[in-house]
Amino acid sequence: MAEHPVTAGRLERIVTEIAEEMAAQTNRGKVADYIPPLARVDPAHFALAVVLPDGTTISAGDCTMRFSIQSVSKVFTLALALGKMGEQMWSRVGREPSGDPFNSIVQLEYERGLPRNPFINAGAIAVTDSILSSYMPKEALGEILQFVRFVAGDEDIAIDPAVARSEQETGFRNIALANFMREFGTIDGPVEQTLGVYFHHCAIAMTARQLAMAGRFLAYDGCLYPGGPRVIAARMARQINTLMLTCGHYDRSGEFAFSVGLPGKSGVGGGILAVAPGQAAIGCWSPGLNRSGNSELGSRALERLAERTGWSVFAPR
Amino acid sequence: MAEHPVTAGRLERIVTEIAEEMAAQTNRGKVADYIPPLARVDPAHFALAVVLPDGTTISAGDCTMRFSIQSVSKVFTLALALGKMGEQMWSRVGREPSGDPFNSIVQLEYERGLPRNPFINAGAIAVTDSILSSYMPKEALGEILQFVRFVAGDEDIAIDPAVARSEQETGFRNIALANFMREFGTIDGPVEQTLGVYFHHCAIAMTARQLAMAGRFLAYDGCLYPGGPRVIAARMARQINTLMLTCGHYDRSGEFAFSVGLPGKSGVGGGILAVAPGQAAIGCWSPGLNRSGNSELGSRALERLAERTGWSVFAPR
Amino acid sequence: MAEHPVTAGRLERIVTEIAEEMAAQTNRGKVADYIPPLARVDPAHFALAVVLPDGTTISAGDCTMRFSIQSVSKVFTLALALGKMGEQMWSRVGREPSGDPFNSIVQLEYERGLPRNPFINAGAIAVTDSILSSYMPKEALGEILQFVRFVAGDEDIAIDPAVARSEQETGFRNIALANFMREFGTIDGPVEQTLGVYFHHCAIAMTARQLAMAGRFLAYDGCLYPGGPRVIAARMARQINTLMLTCGHYDRSGEFAFSVGLPGKSGVGGGILAVAPGQAAIGCWSPGLNRSGNSELGSRALERLAERTGWSVFAPR
Amino acid sequence: MAEHPVTAGRLERIVTEIAEEMAAQTNRGKVADYIPPLARVDPAHFALAVVLPDGTTISAGDCTMRFSIQSVSKVFTLALALGKMGEQMWSRVGREPSGDPFNSIVQLEYERGLPRNPFINAGAIAVTDSILSSYMPKEALGEILQFVRFVAGDEDIAIDPAVARSEQETGFRNIALANFMREFGTIDGPVEQTLGVYFHHCAIAMTARQLAMAGRFLAYDGCLYPGGPRVIAARMARQINTLMLTCGHYDRSGEFAFSVGLPGKSGVGGGILAVAPGQAAIGCWSPGLNRSGNSELGSRALERLAERTGWSVFAPR
Repeated sequence: MAEHPVTAGRLERIVTEIAEEMAAQTNRGKVADYIPPLARVDPAHFALAVVLPDGTTISAGDCTMRFSIQSVSKVFTLALALGKMGEQMWSRVGREPSGDPFNSIVQLEYERGLPRNPFINAGAIAVTDSILSSYMPKEALGEILQFVRFVAGDEDIAIDPAVARSEQETGFRNIALANFMREFGTIDGPVEQTLGVYFHHCAIAMTARQLAMAGRFLAYDGCLYPGGPRVIAARMARQINTLMLTCGHYDRSGEFAFSVGLPGKSGVGGGILAVAPGQAAIGCWSPGLNRSGNSELGSRALERLAERTGWSVFAPR
Repeated sequence: MAEHPVTAGRLERIVTEIAEEMAAQTNRGKVADYIPPLARVDPAHFALAVVLPDGTTISAGDCTMRFSIQSVSKVFTLALALGKMGEQMWSRVGREPSGDPFNSIVQLEYERGLPRNPFINAGAIAVTDSILSSYMPKEALGEILQFVRFVAGDEDIAIDPAVARSEQETGFRNIALANFMREFGTIDGPVEQTLGVYFHHCAIAMTARQLAMAGRFLAYDGCLYPGGPRVIAARMARQINTLMLTCGHYDRSGEFAFSVGLPGKSGVGGGILAVAPGQAAIGCWSPGLNRSGNSELGSRALERLAERTGWSVFAPR
Repeated sequence: MAEHPVTAGRLERIVTEIAEEMAAQTNRGKVADYIPPLARVDPAHFALAVVLPDGTTISAGDCTMRFSIQSVSKVFTLALALGKMGEQMWSRVGREPSGDPFNSIVQLEYERGLPRNPFINAGAIAVTDSILSSYMPKEALGEILQFVRFVAGDEDIAIDPAVARSEQETGFRNIALANFMREFGTIDGPVEQTLGVYFHHCAIAMTARQLAMAGRFLAYDGCLYPGGPRVIAARMARQINTLMLTCGHYDRSGEFAFSVGLPGKSGVGGGILAVAPGQAAIGCWSPGLNRSGNSELGSRALERLAERTGWSVFAPR
Repeated sequence: MAEHPVTAGRLERIVTEIAEEMAAQTNRGKVADYIPPLARVDPAHFALAVVLPDGTTISAGDCTMRFSIQSVSKVFTLALALGKMGEQMWSRVGREPSGDPFNSIVQLEYERGLPRNPFINAGAIAVTDSILSSYMPKEALGEILQFVRFVAGDEDIAIDPAVARSEQETGFRNIALANFMREFGTIDGPVEQTLGVYFHHCAIAMTARQLAMAGRFLAYDGCLYPGGPRVIAARMARQINTLMLTCGHYDRSGEFAFSVGLPGKSGVGGGILAVAPGQAAIGCWSPGLNRSGNSELGSRALERLAERTGWSVFAPR
């Protein structure tokens, strides 16, 4: 009883129309202003890129502009760490939604230093620390960057050093979270090294198209494309998708699942990576944020896209 | 790139094998003992029933025994209330996962009386109260029961009065939650009436097969079967599925989504309703519970079923 | 090195001057408006009464007007319960300051139903319940009233039934607290009876002078006056004074101890009972409240009184 | 109606007897073991020193052994900061009891980075930071040490560098608290400097007699002895006493006020400073701690001392 699959032609029209609709929006949210390099970004930008199973990319808007992927990087470090450590990863970080803002420390105290999932800041710091148990700090960062380039099939992806520096200078809350976890042994390495790597991988800059490309392995059960090279086990790809659906948008994760119905992960740079399993990987960017720190237009654009394509994971197939 | 659809014949083998596996399990969890009628249930029971789009039912185990559906009833009252009130329902109850146990009052205090979602007790009480704004208490209960019979296509479903009475006598925490919300105006009717209806709909008794039948409308975008009579709007059916996936298993909702990958709702009677959109509605029952109050064997059986059928909503389609 | 004791004559001047100062204040706080009988009280009232060891009363303002003592009654029920049950009282209620508003339920959940002290609402309800283990509800209330009349040496003290009724109709938060404690076994009797007695003793009406008289036993180590009849053991009187100092003014208890330096207990009716051990018992009333629910002028009047008399318990003696 | 003042002779007997009683105790608590220099201390030690208004010292036990004063140092930094900054100090730190363990971060999140009082760790770090707004780090530490030597009238007081170093290496929770406050602007200087000074002043080592001497200014309204040189304003000395009574013993502050009835401040080194306003300053030490981190024998010894001397601030005077 599945709906008719969306043809590339129809998808092209849909994507173009969505970009036009978004261009007409007046409520574009508020650009993140806690560090200067993010505060300077023009809120007028919008980009949407959809990569299909055969590699076709359908896009509209500012798809060649780079933005800071911020928390979207948590998806890639989780994939890398899961690949290295396997299921034992879950002894350091939970997999339940938190329902709290991204940087709350309350949950950490009540649950004795164990972050509730890998997508709240504390959890992502714990995941980063676990990568550091296999690599020296510089190597770890190289490994992460190389992983992102590999899954995106694009060597032209880099870290923005100005963003990393700004984060490091003002990231007091993250330093607090990391030290708190160090107290409980969730983190075992030197806190500064873990945070150094964390702040840097959050500062990876990509275009919406690169982001969509980098998300393909989640759409195809761990392979770069249907039948293509395997990145991680199918089971792990589905686990990551699950976490994106239940915890990918801070304290609006439920809302995103509700209105979009796709696994997605947002970052305060205004990027969102979304995945329609078996159908497409999607990169979206618009720097204005809603109150929970998710891209205002990005969320709406993805809602429209899911609506018109019928890609919701909750639709009958 | 979707996996081959599961034939009825293969599904029959899978269901039978799962029932056998479960019969061999020694860790069956612990039967709920907070009220005598539940405490008396034999932990040896297990039932699994799968209803396919064409109405075929494949089942194994104690599928003709009735059990108390408890919190699974929250799905039906939510569907009924959404049908009556539409989107304005969401001004009384949130849709974010809570990450907390089912009966926590802490979240309610911090969020000024607004329950985080309709599947924690506070939220379900608020939903019940909203039904009472259209009906008198007795009528409301009749309406709920009639709704469940209608979606199950089975008049032989009733409320167990002994369970309802026991709940009412010992439900101090729920009385506390309801009065707390009354203080904030989330509930506007007389608290006793709302709780009376709530305790009674939690005491609905059904078989695993009846439960599966009653869940079909969630599998087919709001219709009783593909192309069949519409119960609620497609959009609402997907919303309920989303909530089941993100919040259906108390503080193990993430875990269930992780290991099963299907929308599901559990109750302390040991029942679980699960939905594979477009594929099947599933009723499962085994009274022994894990630490979070979800059926121990039920959770495992559904994990095996999803694994073998490839029905996870996170699998490529 | 103690300061010179304050003579009755000088005290008379001090009390008169304070009343004049208070009459000139323009910021008088906000009268409690959650029930009509309190909301109707004229914010212009002010009364201050000081009873010396020899029974001399020095007063100014509206000292013959009755007001609803509300939470000040918690002092008398605690004294009565301690007298009956002795130290085993402390297995039902803690003695640590809470730092939270008077009606928070969060602490109760984290400490598994044990209220942190007898002066937050939950604690006072638990104390009331413990009185009900010795008496039938009606008797209990009679016993409490008789105790207050006895310590005040005044039969002309009664409960205001309109206030009690209003409390009962709107006291959803207290009903929530009581049921929450019933769930944990902190309260063992029928919740309605306990709350009935609680709402009624909070509705006791007294004048500032009667309140000061009723507090004498706390100023003289448990005796009605120096060398007079003993009401409770000296140890218990000091315990109650300690609790009044550390927890007597909700989330401003520290502030009151800081600025006044005397054990005191406030109520939302605008009354405050304060005690200068060995020197005086003080009743004060002004219905306008500050943001924490304590009498705005009452707090300031007592600060001035302590300043001019040198009665602070933290002053050298 | 005050009790007869205690003569020096009788006090001598009392102190000796208490030391004997404590020597006979078998439950001596558990020595702090989170850093090696504290873990190595022999739990058999006990010291009690009482300094009277005329300078007479009455002591028993190991009164010439130095111990790490730890959190007791918070009293001296608060006095120094209050003297420098006056009442504006209270815009950076509250004065309400917290009711929580000494190192909780939950309260900080709910109250947006403002520590509830100067005696929880977060509050003491904020006080230390405020001293750093007038001095360079090294100077600040010198200033603190000089202040302690001055009030103790003893140049032979120093910082134990091994303790300071150990604290710094393992103080992840304090680093978390400080960074958390830095995020909210409660702390404005470089976090490492503030923590450096904090860890060092906690590592001051003193004998019980030196501690008693250093506490005299709190017993005499801010003067070193009755009529002696003024250290801080009388009002401030009483404020500090108030805070010691309401918040001086972590989550057992109420209990200490209840059983001892004197302002007191404990440290995890096993030291307690207590003050009987106008009567005496008291230093006590025994390294074994109760579950809340207060000296087990120290608490009991002070309870006996208050009982036999009648020094409770809640006793009639």
